Amino acid sequence: QTSAVQSSSDGSSVTLFGIADVTYGYGTGSIASKSQLYSGGNTASRLGFRGVEDLGGGMAAGYWLEAGLNIDDGSTGTTNTNNQPNGSVGGFNFNRRATVSLMDFWGEMRAGRDFTAHYRNRTDVDPFSNNGAGTSQPQAGSIGGPTSTRASNIIAYYLPPNLGGFFGEVQYYFGENGSPAPIEHDGTGYSGRVGYATGPFAIALAAGRTKFARTATSGDIDSANLGVSWDFKVVKVMGGYYRDKVDKLPEITATGYLVGAVVPVGFDQFKVSWSTYGTDATGDPTARKWAFGYVYNFSKRTALYATYARVSNSGGSTTAVNGSLTDPNRSSSGYDLGMKLAF
Amino acid sequence: QTSAVQSSSDGSSVTLFGIADVTYGYGTGSIASKSQLYSGGNTASRLGFRGVEDLGGGMAAGYWLEAGLNIDDGSTGTTNTNNQPNGSVGGFNFNRRATVSLMDFWGEMRAGRDFTAHYRNRTDVDPFSNNGAGTSQPQAGSIGGPTSTRASNIIAYYLPPNLGGFFGEVQYYFGENGSPAPIEHDGTGYSGRVGYATGPFAIALAAGRTKFARTATSGDIDSANLGVSWDFKVVKVMGGYYRDKVDKLPEITATGYLVGAVVPVGFDQFKVSWSTYGTDATGDPTARKWAFGYVYNFSKRTALYATYARVSNSGGSTTAVNGSLTDPNRSSSGYDLGMKLAF
Amino acid sequence: QTSAVQSSSDGSSVTLFGIADVTYGYGTGSIASKSQLYSGGNTASRLGFRGVEDLGGGMAAGYWLEAGLNIDDGSTGTTNTNNQPNGSVGGFNFNRRATVSLMDFWGEMRAGRDFTAHYRNRTDVDPFSNNGAGTSQPQAGSIGGPTSTRASNIIAYYLPPNLGGFFGEVQYYFGENGSPAPIEHDGTGYSGRVGYATGPFAIALAAGRTKFARTATSGDIDSANLGVSWDFKVVKVMGGYYRDKVDKLPEITATGYLVGAVVPVGFDQFKVSWSTYGTDATGDPTARKWAFGYVYNFSKRTALYATYARVSNSGGSTTAVNGSLTDPNRSSSGYDLGMKLAF
Repeated sequence: QTSAVQSSSDGSSVTLFGIADVTYGYGTGSIASKSQLYSGGNTASRLGFRGVEDLGGGMAAGYWLEAGLNIDDGSTGTTNTNNQPNGSVGGFNFNRRATVSLMDFWGEMRAGRDFTAHYRNRTDVDPFSNNGAGTSQPQAGSIGGPTSTRASNIIAYYLPPNLGGFFGEVQYYFGENGSPAPIEHDGTGYSGRVGYATGPFAIALAAGRTKFARTATSGDIDSANLGVSWDFKVVKVMGGYYRDKVDKLPEITATGYLVGAVVPVGFDQFKVSWSTYGTDATGDPTARKWAFGYVYNFSKRTALYATYARVSNSGGSTTAVNGSLTDPNRSSSGYDLGMKLAF
Repeated sequence: QTSAVQSSSDGSSVTLFGIADVTYGYGTGSIASKSQLYSGGNTASRLGFRGVEDLGGGMAAGYWLEAGLNIDDGSTGTTNTNNQPNGSVGGFNFNRRATVSLMDFWGEMRAGRDFTAHYRNRTDVDPFSNNGAGTSQPQAGSIGGPTSTRASNIIAYYLPPNLGGFFGEVQYYFGENGSPAPIEHDGTGYSGRVGYATGPFAIALAAGRTKFARTATSGDIDSANLGVSWDFKVVKVMGGYYRDKVDKLPEITATGYLVGAVVPVGFDQFKVSWSTYGTDATGDPTARKWAFGYVYNFSKRTALYATYARVSNSGGSTTAVNGSLTDPNRSSSGYDLGMKLAF
Repeated sequence: QTSAVQSSSDGSSVTLFGIADVTYGYGTGSIASKSQLYSGGNTASRLGFRGVEDLGGGMAAGYWLEAGLNIDDGSTGTTNTNNQPNGSVGGFNFNRRATVSLMDFWGEMRAGRDFTAHYRNRTDVDPFSNNGAGTSQPQAGSIGGPTSTRASNIIAYYLPPNLGGFFGEVQYYFGENGSPAPIEHDGTGYSGRVGYATGPFAIALAAGRTKFARTATSGDIDSANLGVSWDFKVVKVMGGYYRDKVDKLPEITATGYLVGAVVPVGFDQFKVSWSTYGTDATGDPTARKWAFGYVYNFSKRTALYATYARVSNSGGSTTAVNGSLTDPNRSSSGYDLGMKLAF
């Protein structure tokens, strides 16, 4: 007999899961081009362990441990322990998610490290899910700081799934930055999201605030956004509006938009998105990106993919694709060729 | 079919196991209070891989890899490679245990990183098993240095389990600190433990020494302790005596006591402990702690828990609960509210 | 029921595998001796996750994640992200291998971190597979730099297995060192290997080059080698020739040889090897090593082993065994006593 991996406790369940995604990425700009092998052009590479225990009477408990990794060099992810600008620690960490949940008819209580509520409208309506050369500009250029995507020390409540299409979550997270004023609340914040999904249509509104002491380089960060999608079967269209504000001296506000579409043909997919993100800093630096993608699915789990992206800059912006470098207001382009396996 | 995790070799067995424990912790002292989300208020969070191979004729071989992790931020554990004061390395490490064993009628030979023998009387008789706000003072204040809890590079022998209640272990561990005198033996040491357990009664005596060159801040560390417990079914009572000595200039000796009780009511548990630990440094600084705990077990694997603890200080001691700060000789208190899953 | 580890996707397959190997190692030289517990005296300790998905029509996709670890202290491996002299990052990393593969009748495309092609003739014909005190001198003394054993960012092609005994692979790897001359190509390279294996006989030739800017301490590294083995059943004999050149100022060339034999007796093995490696630096420093090994296999997965090795130095060489120190041109010897489990 060969099947012999088991978990330790009676009735215990462990699900091992992961993504292995490797990409050849090329970028070119007015200053320098770059060729590289990187990881996660279609879906971020990861290794995870999760499980749910049925406690009877409709109640359940769950845990989720998910770690980032890179197929190109075998390196593993960094996490930010307390939502601080310099709070990253390296090594293999469950940086993508580390949570414990208690679920019942009233919804879900969840605690640990997770996506912030105000992040989800950036990934849910991006045809490229914020991966690779096609990553939307509101994600690539975000001024949202340490909690732009995830936060540590979250206590969250999620609405139950049976509310006629309404869904929502609220989060409070601790910065744990110690007592000395004025930075005692740095990294502490809250975020929420409400939405409605019925049949092919979905809409969600989110907003969050993370506190930082007001200086020339930092201050409270407010992020608000709106995501909409409609699935016409032959094509799914999606759009997003994003607004981030950093209350430093002086205050800076960024505004972004995205429109995108995904066309499934059998197991294959064609993707396109246009997005923009710019701030009200001197000159109003703004980047606009076109991205085109093709995914060839061998199976539900394995795919080859190709992405082409082109960024235009104005107002002094120097955004470039795939690690290339470009002068202010010059454009940059690049592409990804990769393979993804899910397990 | 979905069940598809398997180990690589014929007849091979891998057991995947872990703990996911997350806690809201609050502490208050005369100087500062602290609110935080942390991990391991009831049981330290971990992920592990272990297995045993039956070699026939009563002989068996085993391995055990156990890594610490934190649910609050996804970060992972540090280990101390060679038992040195500054020997810690971060990232995901099998810091909790990394051993290979060979077992037969004569007992067990075990090599690698593990608990030191002189640690076990600190955790075995603590109702809170040295976790969370209820952690005993002989653990929280230990002057036992780098090998107070675990050591690397251990070669150990364990008595077989069928000696009429007698049990015991001896360990020798290498500091591997290189040749130059006087620090060539830093981190090298030995430890042993003998005990007797029959029916409801258990008693164990342990002692260990780890060598460090004698200076104003370090020196050989001797730890000796005694643990006793009696399980009356309706209540299990336990007690411990602890003595640690650091042979620096001048020498310092610490003495501690613990008395505790656990009352199981169905799957629920009520816990109480009183412990003290103090040194003969100037003023005889000493801390005394009361801890009260309640655990609600949903199942054998999942529990909610609450702990309250209060520390009194004398002789200049400033021990505080859950990351709060308190002035010399002032008290501090705090509590944990958490959830634990085992898998 | 207890068997409950499963992978997340329908039809998904995860194989969990590993090695736990711990060794007592002793070495002695003219300056200093050393006793230590270390990991991997017979086979490097590791933990891995791999899988293959059958895509139909003879096509398959695979992934392989393999991380190094140490049983003696629980610490985990470092990887080199971009093949740079100072490119190592610590923590738990899939430093041993992190690849994605696509396989069909035409062979295998593989991308990620893996052994370099020019490494394999060092391990394949070493009776000790480059582990422990018996490690061959062409491995122990290699001047082959950051890609001597593995490289990151590899794109590789492997011939299919059905070519009448011919096998081969070619690799290209990216240094990703950015644009500024002259170090822009540091860590970029290519390697290839061709061979022929039929019945008991195998031969393989490999060569690789990794680029580094030419200075007094670094320059392009060329490695070429030849490995041969013949399995006479009662004894397998093997030999290797190695040549490494670093094109620094001035250029340095190293030459090495190995002859070895493995005698299997039931599950037991006796091993012997003689190897030498020396450079054309001033004095022609050269080390010669005899190594003798015995492995007692309890089963296919579990073994005890002992190795004895002795190194002779000339031309100013100071090579020593197992962490001991020896004067120029003095010899050094040492031994390993260890246990290995595979899972």
